[in-house]
Amino acid sequence: MIGNIIGPEIRELIEARNFAALRGVLEDFSPADVAELITDVAEDEQAIVFRLLPHQQATEVMEYLEPDAQQTVLRAMGREEAARILNEMSADDRTALLEELPGAAVAQMLTLLSPQERAIAQSLLNYPEGSVGRLMTPDFVSVRAHWNVQQVLDHIREHGRDSETLNVIYVTDERGRLIDDLRIREILLRPVSTPVREIHDSSALSLRASDEAEVALELFKKYDRNTLPVVDFEEKLLGIVTVDDMLDVQEEEATEDIQKMGAVEALDEPYLAATLGEMVKKRATWLVVLFVGELFTATAMRHYQSEIDRATILAVFLPLIISSGGNSGSQASTLIIRALAVGELALSDWWTVVRKEFFSGVLLGGILGVIGFLRIELWAMFMPDYGEHHLRLALTVALSLVGVVLWGTMSGSMLPLILRRVGLDPASSSAPFVATLVDVTGLVIYFNMATVLLRGTML
Amino acid sequence: MIGNIIGPEIRELIEARNFAALRGVLEDFSPADVAELITDVAEDEQAIVFRLLPHQQATEVMEYLEPDAQQTVLRAMGREEAARILNEMSADDRTALLEELPGAAVAQMLTLLSPQERAIAQSLLNYPEGSVGRLMTPDFVSVRAHWNVQQVLDHIREHGRDSETLNVIYVTDERGRLIDDLRIREILLRPVSTPVREIHDSSALSLRASDEAEVALELFKKYDRNTLPVVDFEEKLLGIVTVDDMLDVQEEEATEDIQKMGAVEALDEPYLAATLGEMVKKRATWLVVLFVGELFTATAMRHYQSEIDRATILAVFLPLIISSGGNSGSQASTLIIRALAVGELALSDWWTVVRKEFFSGVLLGGILGVIGFLRIELWAMFMPDYGEHHLRLALTVALSLVGVVLWGTMSGSMLPLILRRVGLDPASSSAPFVATLVDVTGLVIYFNMATVLLRGTML
Repeated sequence: MIGNIIGPEIRELIEARNFAALRGVLEDFSPADVAELITDVAEDEQAIVFRLLPHQQATEVMEYLEPDAQQTVLRAMGREEAARILNEMSADDRTALLEELPGAAVAQMLTLLSPQERAIAQSLLNYPEGSVGRLMTPDFVSVRAHWNVQQVLDHIREHGRDSETLNVIYVTDERGRLIDDLRIREILLRPVSTPVREIHDSSALSLRASDEAEVALELFKKYDRNTLPVVDFEEKLLGIVTVDDMLDVQEEEATEDIQKMGAVEALDEPYLAATLGEMVKKRATWLVVLFVGELFTATAMRHYQSEIDRATILAVFLPLIISSGGNSGSQASTLIIRALAVGELALSDWWTVVRKEFFSGVLLGGILGVIGFLRIELWAMFMPDYGEHHLRLALTVALSLVGVVLWGTMSGSMLPLILRRVGLDPASSSAPFVATLVDVTGLVIYFNMATVLLRGTML
Repeated sequence: MIGNIIGPEIRELIEARNFAALRGVLEDFSPADVAELITDVAEDEQAIVFRLLPHQQATEVMEYLEPDAQQTVLRAMGREEAARILNEMSADDRTALLEELPGAAVAQMLTLLSPQERAIAQSLLNYPEGSVGRLMTPDFVSVRAHWNVQQVLDHIREHGRDSETLNVIYVTDERGRLIDDLRIREILLRPVSTPVREIHDSSALSLRASDEAEVALELFKKYDRNTLPVVDFEEKLLGIVTVDDMLDVQEEEATEDIQKMGAVEALDEPYLAATLGEMVKKRATWLVVLFVGELFTATAMRHYQSEIDRATILAVFLPLIISSGGNSGSQASTLIIRALAVGELALSDWWTVVRKEFFSGVLLGGILGVIGFLRIELWAMFMPDYGEHHLRLALTVALSLVGVVLWGTMSGSMLPLILRRVGLDPASSSAPFVATLVDVTGLVIYFNMATVLLRGTML
C-alpha cells in the first residue's frame, strides 16, 4: 500500500542518487513497509536501497522480505554485514531464509554465524520441511514454579529482550521440561507476592518439533491460542510457535488443495518462480492420465459408430450432454472436497450426502432437461434440421441430461469420500478428473437412451 | 481429538444418568475440548451435558461451540441462565452467536442483556456482515501518555480482568482517540518509573470498524501483528481485533474462492446446513449458464454435420479432443486464479504469463499429440477401424490436440486476468467455465483441421 503512494518518490531519489534524503524517508516507515518497497523496485536497485538502512532496521526489514529479494540483497552484501544480520535475525525467520537457499549457500551462511547461533540454525534445519521445528523459535522466557510474580517480572525485565513474545511465559522444571504455560495476563493481574505454582492456567498444550505444520494449525484453530510451546520426546521445551505463522501455513494448505482440484500437482513455489520445465512437469502427469482416461471415450464411441452412421444428428448433441455431466460433477466434488478439508463433513455423513446429492442431481438434471427439450422443440418449429422425429429426439436429449447430471453429482460427491476412505487425498478428485470419468459414462448413458427411445424411428 | 478418546465413556455416563461423575470428568477438560465433545453427542443430549458445567466453564464452552449447538443449548436454557451466559460472553463471540439467529430471536436475546452489554451488542450488530466491526471486542486496556510504567501495571491489575488481551496496551488521549499501541514487552522490559510517552513502538496501525474483514486479514499478514485496534472516523478507539479470528476469515475466503472455481455460488454456510433448495439454487445458475454456452456446441456441430456424415470416425475422437482442451484450460486458470488471490501475480505480469503459458501449451499439447498419434497408428496396425487414410487421421488428431491444448492454456490463463482487469472476480473463470469455452472453440479447431488435412481423402 505504501509502495503505491511513495514508490515514485523513492524511484526519483534513487535515480537522483540522493541517498541522504532516501535514508531519511525510509527511517519513518515500518519494516514491513520498507520490505514491500524493496520488493517493488527493480532487482538491481534492491541492494542499494537496503544498504541505506540503519543496522537495527536492516535486520527487521530482512525478516519481512520475500525469499527472492532476500537472496538478491544477501548476495550484494559484504561478509561482515551478512554475518551481523544473520546473527541478529529471529531464528524462525532465519530458518525460512536458509531453507530457500541451495545447499552450498546454506553451508556458507552457517559459517557466518556465531557458534551459538550456528547450533540453533543447524538444529532447526534438521527438522523435516513442513514440520513444526522449521517454524519454531527458541527465544522464549521460562520461569520456575517456586518463584513469585515479582521474581517473574524481574526475570522478564532482565532476560526477556530477545524473546519472540512475552504474551506467554513457560514454567519448566530443573531439567527444562515443560510444566505449564501462563498467559501474561495471569501474571499481571495478580499481587506481586503470588507464587507461580498458585497460578493455574488451562493445562499446557504442546506440539512436538516433528509434528507437521498442519497439526499445529488445527490446534491453534481449535484452542484459539496465540502461541504454542514445542517440546521434544522427553517433554523438554525447545521453542515456541506463534499464530501469525499459521496464517501462512493455512494459505499454503489452501493453495495446495486448489491446485490439486485443478488437476495440477502442488507447485510448492510461486507461479512466477516456477521454471517452464517444472511447470510442464507438474501439469503433464495429470494431463496425460486424464488423456488416457479420455481415450476410452474413443473406444466407447467406436462401439456406437453404427448408431452415429444412421443418425449423425446424435453426434451434434454429444458435447452438450457429456459436458453437462462433467459440470455438475465438478460442482459436487468441489463442495464435498472443501467441506471435508475444513471439517464440516465427516466420512460418517456419507448417507446424508448421498440423499442430498441424489435430489440435487434430479432437480438440476430436470432443469437442464427442460431447457434442452424446449431448445430442440422450438428449433424444430422453424427449422427442418431434426426431421420428423424431433419429439423423440428432444425426449432422448432431455432424459439423457437428467441421467448424466444425476450420475455427475453422484460420482462427483462420492469420489472424494471414497478417496478419503482409502486414505488418499480427496482433493485429487479434481474437476477435470470427475469430468473425464463422467464423459466416458455419460456417452454410454446417452447412446443407450437413444437406442431405446429412437429404435424403429431414427435408429 | 479428545472426543474420540473419551466420547464412548461420556456416552455411557449419559445413558446411566450418572451426572455427578460426568460433571467431574468434564471439569478436567479445556473449554475447547468440552465444546467439541458437546458437538459430537446427539442433539437431544447436548443441553443435558452443557447444563452440568459450572458457571464460569459454561460461558467459556459456549464461546467455542458451533452455531448449531449454541442454538440447541440456548433453547433448552432458562431465561436466567441464558441471561447470565450472554452477559458474560466476550463481545465478539456473542456477536458471532447473535448474527446466526433469526431477527426475532436476536431481539429476544437482547432483552436478556444488561443495559450496558445490550448497548455494546447492538452497536456491534449495526456493523455490516463481514466487516471488522462484527469481529471486534470492546474489551481492551487503555492508558494515558503521562502515566509511568508502574501506573500502567497498577491499572492493568485493577481493570484488566475483562480485557480480551493484555499483550497490547493502547495509549489514548482525553477524548479517547488512539495515540499509540504498546506491546506488553515494551512495558515489561522498562524500569517502572519510565513515562509512557517515552516508550515508542512502531506507529499505531489501525482498522476502521466499517472495513471489510479481508482488509484486516491483509494488514495482519503484512505486519505480523497479533492484535490490531479498531477506530471510528474520528480516530476514537472502539475495540480490538485479534489474529485468531483471521484464521477463520482466511479459511472462509479460500472456501468462497474454491466454490466459485467449481462453478458454485459461495454457499456462505456449511454443506450440511444448506437446505436442498439453497443447494440447488446456488448450483443451478452456473449450471444453466454453462448449459446455454454449451448449446453453441450443438450449433457448431450442426455446421459440420456434413463432414460427420462423410466420416463418422471424426465424431469418435471429438470428446477426447475437446476435453483435453478443457483440462489444460482448467489447469491454467486454477494456477492463475490462485496466484492472483495470494498476491504472487499482478496484472502487470500478464506478458510473462502469456509467454509461459504459450510454451507450456505447445509442450503439453505436443505430449498429448504424440500419444494420440501413436494410439491411432498402433491401433491401425492391427485393426481396420480407421481405413486406409489412418495416417492422415492420426495427423489430424495430433495437430488438433496441439491446437486445442494451446488454446486451452491461453484462454484459461488470460480469462482470470481479464476478469480482474475489468473489476470482476477472477475466481469466476472456473474450470467448468473455461472447459465450456474451450469445448465450443475446440471443435471448430478440430473440424477445420480435418477439413484441411482430410480434403480429398476422407472428406
